[in-house]
Formats: sequence, C-alpha cells, structure tokens
Amino acid sequence: MISGQDDAWYVGKRLATKIRDIKDFPKKGIIFRDITPLLQDADSFREAVSFIARHYRDKNISFVVSPEARGFILGAAIAYELGAGFIPVRKSGKLPYSSEKATYSLEYGEDEIQIHKDAIKKKDKVLIFDDLIATGGTAQATCKLVEKLGGEVTGVCFLVELTELKGKEKLSEYDVFTIIKY
Amino acid sequence: MISGQDDAWYVGKRLATKIRDIKDFPKKGIIFRDITPLLQDADSFREAVSFIARHYRDKNISFVVSPEARGFILGAAIAYELGAGFIPVRKSGKLPYSSEKATYSLEYGEDEIQIHKDAIKKKDKVLIFDDLIATGGTAQATCKLVEKLGGEVTGVCFLVELTELKGKEKLSEYDVFTIIKY
Repeated sequence: MISGQDDAWYVGKRLATKIRDIKDFPKKGIIFRDITPLLQDADSFREAVSFIARHYRDKNISFVVSPEARGFILGAAIAYELGAGFIPVRKSGKLPYSSEKATYSLEYGEDEIQIHKDAIKKKDKVLIFDDLIATGGTAQATCKLVEKLGGEVTGVCFLVELTELKGKEKLSEYDVFTIIKY
Repeated sequence: MISGQDDAWYVGKRLATKIRDIKDFPKKGIIFRDITPLLQDADSFREAVSFIARHYRDKNISFVVSPEARGFILGAAIAYELGAGFIPVRKSGKLPYSSEKATYSLEYGEDEIQIHKDAIKKKDKVLIFDDLIATGGTAQATCKLVEKLGGEVTGVCFLVELTELKGKEKLSEYDVFTIIKY
C-alpha cells in the first residue's frame, strides 16, 4: 500500500524537474527555488493542484488560507479544486477590513501578517497552504491567526520544503504535508 | 440569445452582493471594493472562476497572466479550470530570473512590473486577468509585457470594473471582459 507521503515522493520527483535553481537570489549564498516554470507548465500545475487537493479530499476543508503572494497561486487553485473558499493572509496595511495580527521573526527584526477577523468561524476546518517552507515562521504565524479566530488547522501543506532549515519543527503540533524536498 | 456580456450582467449582479465596500481605504475619499468575502464564499468563488473560464473555453488559451498580488487568486484558479499554465507579473525585484520590464503611471510618479523572459513564446495565446480595473495602467503595462515576449493578448478580464475611471479606454485595442461594474 502506498501512503500519501510515499505517493508524494514520486509526484515530488517529477515536479522537482520543473523547479529552477537560482544561485545567489535574493542574496549571495542562497539558492532560490523558483517555482514559476512549474506554474507555467499546464500539466505540472494541474498535477500539483490535483495531487494536493486529493490528499485533503475527505477532510471537509472549508477554507484554504495562504500567505501572500506566491502562496496565493497554488493555494487558490487548490481551494477551487476542493470546492472550498479562499482566504488571503497579507502583510500589514493590505487588508481593508478589521483584522487579526500575528508577528514572526526574521533574520533581523520581525514582520507582521494579518487576516480578516470575519474570515473564519469557530470549528471551521482550514488547510493552510504556502509554496515553500524555509524556517517556518510565516506558517507558524498563519496557524496562530487561524486559531485566534477559532478555526481548526486540519493540515499545513507546502509544495517545497527546505529540509535543512527544519521549519517543520515549528509546526510539530500540526499535520504537515510537503511534496518536493531539498 | 444571451451574449457573453449579457450573461455576465446576471452573474455580476449576484457576485456583487459578495463585494464589501470599505469607505476611505486606502485613503480618504476612496471606496475600496473588497473582494475577500466573495473569495471566502466557496459557491461565489467557484461561480466567478467557472463563469470566466467558460467565457474563454474555446479560445485555446495557453497561459493566464496576472499581476500580483490579488490578481493571482482568481487568475490561478481560472488557469487551472482552463487547463492553462499560470504566469505571475510582479513588482520589481521579486522575480528571480531574467525579466522583461514595463512601467506605468501612478497618481504621483510611476511603478514598474516584470515578467520572466522565458515565460511566453511567440504566438502563445494569453488571457490577462486581474481582480479589478481602475485607471487601467497596470493592465496596459501587462499587455505590453506579453506582447514584448511575442505573445498574443487573446483577452483581458477583470472581476470588477470601476467604470468612472475609464480604464477600458487604455485597452481599446483589446477584447476586454468585466463582470461586476461600479
């Protein structure tokens, strides 16, 4: 029997051929994993979305929540495929209505993200999706936002995981699913 | 016979009930048309995406191109529904690979957007989607970017049109389709 995560190994290997490595972006010493070739390849885009949606098909997900901006792309398509609503998490000052806030640490200092307070009701089942997990700060803050509003974080999913940065450790209380691992 | 644009009137009226008006955002005197209640309502989100995709179903669209960040949300889901690839247009400094640039005017000064140079090939049929057209500057610059790469702008679509700002006049050479009009 192939479990979801084993199945993901094969899909991940195939989708990884569509990720472009960019050296020294956004700064020296970093290898940036560019997902735009995957998004622009219709077959790979479709496979990524439908594979992830299939993983959560029987979980009664009401909302997919994704942080801006790259997370919106696959996150919204996954919401569509699941028949769920989509909720954006944004940087400060971008959401126009009453918002809940959470902060997370950066290399130097911290940053703040927000969600509309009326986006989620108590016990709503939420899938959090982002394109990539690095240190996990944004994802952890997104989980906090969903829980502050009373939502249940049913799953946290990333297309790409940078395993060396151990971001998953920050999300140990959640069910985390990643497809392409570096 | 109901034409695409007449049909859009009914769908637009229904979807408009899910748009939230926010007075004085982002600054005094502006009524911000907040689409987040529509996105988070699964039925409305699904109706908007499937209605727009249906309008372009027989046009052999290879790519949906959307400017960041809100444009990504419906744009990516429309690409998914059409079986097309998705190409993000981003502000300066966000795209990691070799990019084409275009500038557009703001109230004071100008701004620059970019697209990856290898995103589109000659004669590729492109649908440009953004959530809202105001003065049309971003959309016009996005059309220029697609054409610089040799792509054909098969259609330009917006969920919301602020008709008083006459942004469509900047796009007079293109086939423009809008759903909700103010």
